[in-house]
Amino acid sequence: MLADPVLAAAAAPAEQGRILIGLAVVLVGAKLFGALVERVGQPAVLGELLFGVLLGNLALAGGPSVAPLEASETFAILAELGAILLLLEVGLESTPREMMAVGVPAAVVAVVGVAAPMVLGFVVGEAMLPGEPWMAHAFLGAMLAATSVGITARVLQEAGAARTASARIILGAAVIDDVLGLVVLAIVAGVIRAASAGTTLAPSGIALIVAKALVFLVGAILLGSFASPRIFRHALALRSTGVVQALALGFCFTLAWLASVAGLAPIVGAFAAGLVMEDVHFEDHRKRGERPLHESLRALTGLLVPVFFVRMGMLVHVETFVKPGVITFAVLVTLAAMVGKWACGLVTPRGVSRTTVALGMMPRGEVGLIFAGIGATLAVDGRPVVSPETYAAAVFMVVVTTMATPPLLLWSLRRHGPIDPRPGTA
Amino acid sequence: MLADPVLAAAAAPAEQGRILIGLAVVLVGAKLFGALVERVGQPAVLGELLFGVLLGNLALAGGPSVAPLEASETFAILAELGAILLLLEVGLESTPREMMAVGVPAAVVAVVGVAAPMVLGFVVGEAMLPGEPWMAHAFLGAMLAATSVGITARVLQEAGAARTASARIILGAAVIDDVLGLVVLAIVAGVIRAASAGTTLAPSGIALIVAKALVFLVGAILLGSFASPRIFRHALALRSTGVVQALALGFCFTLAWLASVAGLAPIVGAFAAGLVMEDVHFEDHRKRGERPLHESLRALTGLLVPVFFVRMGMLVHVETFVKPGVITFAVLVTLAAMVGKWACGLVTPRGVSRTTVALGMMPRGEVGLIFAGIGATLAVDGRPVVSPETYAAAVFMVVVTTMATPPLLLWSLRRHGPIDPRPGTA
Repeated sequence: MLADPVLAAAAAPAEQGRILIGLAVVLVGAKLFGALVERVGQPAVLGELLFGVLLGNLALAGGPSVAPLEASETFAILAELGAILLLLEVGLESTPREMMAVGVPAAVVAVVGVAAPMVLGFVVGEAMLPGEPWMAHAFLGAMLAATSVGITARVLQEAGAARTASARIILGAAVIDDVLGLVVLAIVAGVIRAASAGTTLAPSGIALIVAKALVFLVGAILLGSFASPRIFRHALALRSTGVVQALALGFCFTLAWLASVAGLAPIVGAFAAGLVMEDVHFEDHRKRGERPLHESLRALTGLLVPVFFVRMGMLVHVETFVKPGVITFAVLVTLAAMVGKWACGLVTPRGVSRTTVALGMMPRGEVGLIFAGIGATLAVDGRPVVSPETYAAAVFMVVVTTMATPPLLLWSLRRHGPIDPRPGTA
Repeated sequence: MLADPVLAAAAAPAEQGRILIGLAVVLVGAKLFGALVERVGQPAVLGELLFGVLLGNLALAGGPSVAPLEASETFAILAELGAILLLLEVGLESTPREMMAVGVPAAVVAVVGVAAPMVLGFVVGEAMLPGEPWMAHAFLGAMLAATSVGITARVLQEAGAARTASARIILGAAVIDDVLGLVVLAIVAGVIRAASAGTTLAPSGIALIVAKALVFLVGAILLGSFASPRIFRHALALRSTGVVQALALGFCFTLAWLASVAGLAPIVGAFAAGLVMEDVHFEDHRKRGERPLHESLRALTGLLVPVFFVRMGMLVHVETFVKPGVITFAVLVTLAAMVGKWACGLVTPRGVSRTTVALGMMPRGEVGLIFAGIGATLAVDGRPVVSPETYAAAVFMVVVTTMATPPLLLWSLRRHGPIDPRPGTA
């Protein structure tokens, strides 16, 4: 009656113990470091990354090795669930309607904000990594493309500037930017997978990837916008506690799975799920005194999102930076990322602060790291597309753009834009 | 820089996809079935178990096989995290002080409530499974010992009777009962592990297990009661959102890990962690407008606890019941479990309804299933201590005692005991 593999799977006390103590250390350390960097005005995510770097390099200082935890598949999947839930949360911050409303100017800013860093990243790759194939350079460019809408939104909100014209453009562009970045990622990954299989990706293959991504995104958004209010209306008739959370998570995991089946990253599906679910669908739910969805998700993201960022930090082995050229390379990649996004300022409409928009598009955060993680699993000629050096440079770039944004954006908002009369209450 | 095993672990899209679609199906199905059984006045956990049984036996009806999900180590660990979080939540419902206050009568009820079902379970084992070693019979008895304090507390609360004399005795006894049951489990598991290693467990070995369990529990409770207010006071000075949740989970996972190091089940540590953490430690936290700990845990338990119950249901393969004798065996085990707890009624103090106490001690729920799961991983002479038949009987017993309790307990509370004037608001 009991399937034998179940017993085998259930009887892994070593792995279970490793996950338990690993989660305890990661949670407490991430919160402590997050709180410390928040004290100096930085976002908590930065502290979590730094704690991960510290944890992953303890062995260098004679401490215990965390290699078994790094290698644990369960730990990797818990981290991935964290990334998925984070993108769901980010998706929940926008609606398909809001994306349409900011329309043309946001789309222009987004296209420039994707294209300029990609070109600059490619050029840096050609100049600094002449030994690597052009696909690795293209992937380097793609990693610099996507703005971290989560970090940007949080800074705008904390500054009480979430409803300014600049904020609307930045948020709209950052959303389109995310989608474009994911399509670019799918294309570049497809080219690389074809190359590692010894073939080249024909233009029809590229068109297929774009078509699959568009069909998935447009399909998920149209079908989801149509179906999700109806599903939730029926589900709420059940009058059972937690039904909205269960359905929302089920919907998110299903779209994440469908995205991976369609050849996209699971986070694309999670983002699409967040986009189509709107608080208005859960009006009855809130009237009954239950908490809104994004609030009830917070306990889950509180557990799993730090796992993702700490694990990303753990993957940075600092001895790599000692190699000559790595620091120079990391600085050039970071400059490409920053200058590329400054180009967004050139295409902002009148009456909107160029500096604010450019700075708002700058942080890369989670998406850049997710891209780097995917790149590390792709190989050309048997070598990973994202080499240890490139990964180190990507983390450096994320740390610098993430760290520099909050103080600079706040300064620009105060200098150029109208600030909400109730700062800090938005 | 990137450790190679990390890349290997990160590159398991099949496992990742399986977990995503598995979580989606489990969450939505568990919620749907939970809501349906709630409509007929039953606890949601019953619906989750039934959905698991359905899912695990889909292949019998020509549906897809869920064997790869059953065999997934990540899915097993997610379920285990669900059990750990549930026991944390149950532990949070009591304090060490409350356990002392009900004192002697509750302890007497608890001892009888553990001993009587154990003896009856052992007798049923001897009679029905003569071919199995006596250790398997002892394990069968141990599985019948622990009351599910979660289900009992929820019924008392929903009936508005949580502050009656009967309720205090039942809750106190159920808590002591849980601890006794865990000690019994550790002893029986120790005897079985020794036997499977070809030796016998000397009395000193048994004393060592009891001593380790007592040192762990008393140590965790004393040290935790002393340290936890201080740790949380310092942590709250950080004034960072979610710090209480992160620390509480970190504390819970650490004690769960320590319990497993001490040879106990991780759930013992989780329960001890819940016991020593009191809402009063987080007063400042709540004054700042953050949600109390048990509320912010709900989103996590909402995701992971159903995974545990659905997985437990999945492990029941209904074709086993078709074997002659299994249904008879399951009915006898269930009768032993019910009659054993009725004995509690004989030792209740005056002025307290015997029927209410006996019925309140009856549900087995999660703990019985956790015991059964542990038993399935233990072997004597190369055969699992909890055979497929015994596992089926344990699930049958849990389903019957869980399903029978809410209506019977409600009936007894209305007939014998004073009901809170504001039913449903407790």
